[in-house]
Amino acid sequence: MTGCGDATGYGDAFDAWRADAAGPWRDYTHHRFVQGLAAGTLPRPAFLAYLVQDYRFLIHFSRAWALGIVKAGTLAEMRACAATVDALLNHETSLHFRLCAAAGIDAQALDAAEEAPENLGYTRYVLEAGYSGDFLDLLAALAPCVLGYGEIGARLAREAAPGTPYRDWIDTYAAGDYQRTCRDVGALIDGAVAARLGPGAQSLPRFAELSARFRTATRLEAAFWNLGRA
Amino acid sequence: MTGCGDATGYGDAFDAWRADAAGPWRDYTHHRFVQGLAAGTLPRPAFLAYLVQDYRFLIHFSRAWALGIVKAGTLAEMRACAATVDALLNHETSLHFRLCAAAGIDAQALDAAEEAPENLGYTRYVLEAGYSGDFLDLLAALAPCVLGYGEIGARLAREAAPGTPYRDWIDTYAAGDYQRTCRDVGALIDGAVAARLGPGAQSLPRFAELSARFRTATRLEAAFWNLGRA
Amino acid sequence: MTGCGDATGYGDAFDAWRADAAGPWRDYTHHRFVQGLAAGTLPRPAFLAYLVQDYRFLIHFSRAWALGIVKAGTLAEMRACAATVDALLNHETSLHFRLCAAAGIDAQALDAAEEAPENLGYTRYVLEAGYSGDFLDLLAALAPCVLGYGEIGARLAREAAPGTPYRDWIDTYAAGDYQRTCRDVGALIDGAVAARLGPGAQSLPRFAELSARFRTATRLEAAFWNLGRA
Amino acid sequence: MTGCGDATGYGDAFDAWRADAAGPWRDYTHHRFVQGLAAGTLPRPAFLAYLVQDYRFLIHFSRAWALGIVKAGTLAEMRACAATVDALLNHETSLHFRLCAAAGIDAQALDAAEEAPENLGYTRYVLEAGYSGDFLDLLAALAPCVLGYGEIGARLAREAAPGTPYRDWIDTYAAGDYQRTCRDVGALIDGAVAARLGPGAQSLPRFAELSARFRTATRLEAAFWNLGRA
Repeated sequence: MTGCGDATGYGDAFDAWRADAAGPWRDYTHHRFVQGLAAGTLPRPAFLAYLVQDYRFLIHFSRAWALGIVKAGTLAEMRACAATVDALLNHETSLHFRLCAAAGIDAQALDAAEEAPENLGYTRYVLEAGYSGDFLDLLAALAPCVLGYGEIGARLAREAAPGTPYRDWIDTYAAGDYQRTCRDVGALIDGAVAARLGPGAQSLPRFAELSARFRTATRLEAAFWNLGRA
Repeated sequence: MTGCGDATGYGDAFDAWRADAAGPWRDYTHHRFVQGLAAGTLPRPAFLAYLVQDYRFLIHFSRAWALGIVKAGTLAEMRACAATVDALLNHETSLHFRLCAAAGIDAQALDAAEEAPENLGYTRYVLEAGYSGDFLDLLAALAPCVLGYGEIGARLAREAAPGTPYRDWIDTYAAGDYQRTCRDVGALIDGAVAARLGPGAQSLPRFAELSARFRTATRLEAAFWNLGRA
Repeated sequence: MTGCGDATGYGDAFDAWRADAAGPWRDYTHHRFVQGLAAGTLPRPAFLAYLVQDYRFLIHFSRAWALGIVKAGTLAEMRACAATVDALLNHETSLHFRLCAAAGIDAQALDAAEEAPENLGYTRYVLEAGYSGDFLDLLAALAPCVLGYGEIGARLAREAAPGTPYRDWIDTYAAGDYQRTCRDVGALIDGAVAARLGPGAQSLPRFAELSARFRTATRLEAAFWNLGRA
Repeated sequence: MTGCGDATGYGDAFDAWRADAAGPWRDYTHHRFVQGLAAGTLPRPAFLAYLVQDYRFLIHFSRAWALGIVKAGTLAEMRACAATVDALLNHETSLHFRLCAAAGIDAQALDAAEEAPENLGYTRYVLEAGYSGDFLDLLAALAPCVLGYGEIGARLAREAAPGTPYRDWIDTYAAGDYQRTCRDVGALIDGAVAARLGPGAQSLPRFAELSARFRTATRLEAAFWNLGRA
């Protein structure tokens, strides 16, 4: 894993925000749930509880990316967000259905599950950031999830115990496809920041606001792992 | 053409709203611009002026359908809106680029064109209806455009002068594909209304509010044709 | 205290929503924090921790009522929301400053305090409900706080230990002024529901949606008391 | 009147935006409706038609300022917007009622009047700018109305024909109270810009976006005067 402050390959804004949120970022990416995935010691019921909530999360996360289409400033930005919505809504959710079905959780059970407070808190924070702020606020609030999973996936692919039963999960996020998505999202963010705030963006108070958004979303993302309690 | 009050095949809510907005609906669907397309008498510069504004319209209309994803209540509603966003953003806009390019208007000219007041008024009304209201308000504001073009296309396919140079435009909206979209959108609206307001929806004050939304959007849609002035 | 299902004097919609959320409502209104206020056993640091977070809450709650002005359908609804914004922004926040100052917490400390996850979760849920839904969704999400405090205040005024040091807090919400606000808000809700959904509102699926909003906000409101941890 | 480019006393951002929109700004502030108010030649029915639409405008303008409370970043920004909402909702609308009543237009007639397209277009543009953008986008879209009326009032107080029957209207906006409001709003904008974009704000692409917002709102404001057609 790269240390905080090192280049991640996911873009300049992300590097800066991540360094600025070093503590929460570590809490999130090194949460005991994550470490349990790597070691293979995470109890199965904990993983399933997480999966069920993650389905609801996915729905609201799709909504947030759709809000990105509404808030975008160019056709290219709109299309980038629309591609993510399509991936989430038409592929990820189907994958999730299958994954849960294989674990004995059917679509009805997924819909019936009560949204946990940590789930409500995180998803509504992201959506509200998007509604109340502009495109950049939304991206800053979306970034920790997308890019953090990429970082976790890449790290766990190297560090995970050979026999962990969570290899599939790890591979999903370590895969070239997902890593490419992370670099694309990072480039989308950098482009959006530069187009609005210019080359000196990082020295503006506006950038500090965005960094605070990223930090708060990171704290809520860390809390989300707590849902994986057996 | 079916008279106002007749079944259109585009759903019950649409039938009711259309009957309720009979005057503006006729102004819109029988605007002299439309009649000029049918007769072939519409001056070419008028059509091009319309095309240029319609490109900007398409962008904002895509944003409004994306807002539909955000405001939807079920995965099926989200997917229906996402399919429309995809169609608009990835296919219609490209078609538009080609159509305009063939007429000597390049992408740069499209982007540079100042949005006309009629365009601003209509698109922002739809978006604001969606932001300030709920999913139903948004659908009621979106309906006149989608379904009106279907009705106009179907009628003009029967009535247009054989030699009209606007046959391509007419065929686009008369085509089975587009007519299917209209029936799907009509079904989306009826389903969304029933899921929220129940079987007696049409007798509720809420339905009258939606009808007023539809009527206002129809008035603005009629004004949009005025953009086609040579 | 009235049992769940009894008339509260705060309106018909509230009575129905409260009965529908009986479990979470009891968790909220009889939380050990509340019982500690009544018995006088709540540790002072717990109360102060709550006060600090409550200041941030107040800011976002004011924003949510301001969103009510934007989403209202009539001048009377707008004015009712504006009166609440004025009360919160110009009076409650000043009161809060003084209360905190008296406890040794200055304005700078209030601004510097990191928003707790429970605070983020609740306030953003309410705001997002308002943005994504319509005026009724917003009111249903706002109701548990406003009306629950009224119910708690009225009950604690009767039940509190004579020597509890939290008498001032209790009196604020038991006072005639605040009880009148609760009846006004209840009437605003009933009027808004009837104006949109008609006399049979409670039998519509839409009403069940609103009830679910109320229930979720109640769960998050209960979690908010957990902030009062010494 | 100060020439475009001169300092107006309403702040730096306004000065820059106004200079950038010189053509539309002149169309707006020197519209024949405005000149007719000054010369006293504006037909009474034209003025009344404007008054009726202006009432509806006021409602949506209040909603837009309320959205400012939701989108503000500090308590001071929230309070500044709330003061404007209070002035508009509790004083201006009442004044309007009285003014219209004196002209024989009662509250019912005001509510029944159909919103003109120019009214819909302008108000929804401002609201949508606020919803889709952030606090700055909203302020840039609100500025032409507030500050333009101040500039028009001040100029007409000097230039109007002694016997114009529209002296009351002119005095309202020339008055010290309204001029102070303009300076306050100008200061609110400058403060909000500096707090987010720093001291070099005017050189950022973001500032050009805001200027484009201001320009578009100015064009729509100019079109609004067309409502005053006998």
